[in-house]
Amino acid sequence: MSTTPARRGRRPGSPDTRASILVHARTQFAAQGYAGTSVRKVAAAAGVDAALVHHYFGSKDDLFLAALEVALDPREVLRPVAEGGLDGAGERLLRVFVAVWDDETTSLPLRTLLRSVFEPEGGRLTRDGLMRLVLGPLGTALGLDQPDRRMALVASQLVGLVVTRYVLGIEPIASAPSEELVASYAPTVQRYLEDPLG
Amino acid sequence: MSTTPARRGRRPGSPDTRASILVHARTQFAAQGYAGTSVRKVAAAAGVDAALVHHYFGSKDDLFLAALEVALDPREVLRPVAEGGLDGAGERLLRVFVAVWDDETTSLPLRTLLRSVFEPEGGRLTRDGLMRLVLGPLGTALGLDQPDRRMALVASQLVGLVVTRYVLGIEPIASAPSEELVASYAPTVQRYLEDPLG
Repeated sequence: MSTTPARRGRRPGSPDTRASILVHARTQFAAQGYAGTSVRKVAAAAGVDAALVHHYFGSKDDLFLAALEVALDPREVLRPVAEGGLDGAGERLLRVFVAVWDDETTSLPLRTLLRSVFEPEGGRLTRDGLMRLVLGPLGTALGLDQPDRRMALVASQLVGLVVTRYVLGIEPIASAPSEELVASYAPTVQRYLEDPLG
Repeated sequence: MSTTPARRGRRPGSPDTRASILVHARTQFAAQGYAGTSVRKVAAAAGVDAALVHHYFGSKDDLFLAALEVALDPREVLRPVAEGGLDGAGERLLRVFVAVWDDETTSLPLRTLLRSVFEPEGGRLTRDGLMRLVLGPLGTALGLDQPDRRMALVASQLVGLVVTRYVLGIEPIASAPSEELVASYAPTVQRYLEDPLG
């Protein structure tokens, strides 16, 4: 290891240390997935103490969010969806989801993530990001029965909507006003949230 | 143009002519989409008569199918879905769709097509293949009102199911038995086919 002044960025506390932690976090989340990654292992890879990772980034979820480089915190965005309870949750989720994807500021990093789904690491990041940070916590907050199965169904419709509207450009969904999408999809999502699943 | 014996494959009627037509068809469908491509233009690009293209491949739809290199004819596969009428069509469509995607022989070329959706040409081929050869004709056969809107909704759920199960591997959908998928999704597709759309 070099000990020249140029490497002083490796010292705990400098801005370069923060960047180094983020690089190692991104690498580990991509290679090992969310479950296989820990703050301790990221810290070890970056050559710093785990406490410093927590100091910079907060929890493991916060670190994952930073690694994904999405421009929003799903916990904030989803709070109003969960707070209203199960009744009408499908419609509230759709409204938030379409608003985030229709706004270029918030959707650009998500589109980048989506483009990577056919690479093994990109697929893992997308799946973990969607299920661990967005739909999993929402299912818990709503107190669903069979939350994994219900949220996987919700995920499949949301992913399908995104690919249809923004990637394939299938009309009339590609240019439908957001309220029309909410009206079309909210009953589907609501059914996945609360109806008997067969 | 060369007139050496090595180029005799360009003569109408030889196997090389068939291959050449297919290359030009694939190029044109990818660049211009289904609507922007004609048998006449493909024939001109391949330096043959349009009648020869029809002789080798049949209709424009047949040529498109050959260009997509999918291992099945959706018109055959979908016949029993349409023949039963609107009642239960969602369930029959789901059953056929999952069977095709769960069988590696039939799904491999579809997966290849799916992997190309983020390239402009791949996205166009996928969209046109799904809507012009599969869901469009089915909507016509079922006599739907608002067929484009209904079939775009159906497309979004089918695409989402495929990406969730085969690309992202989100559990429990990734390893669910096919009958469970049919039970979960058939009511959604049926609703898109016949319920008021809001």
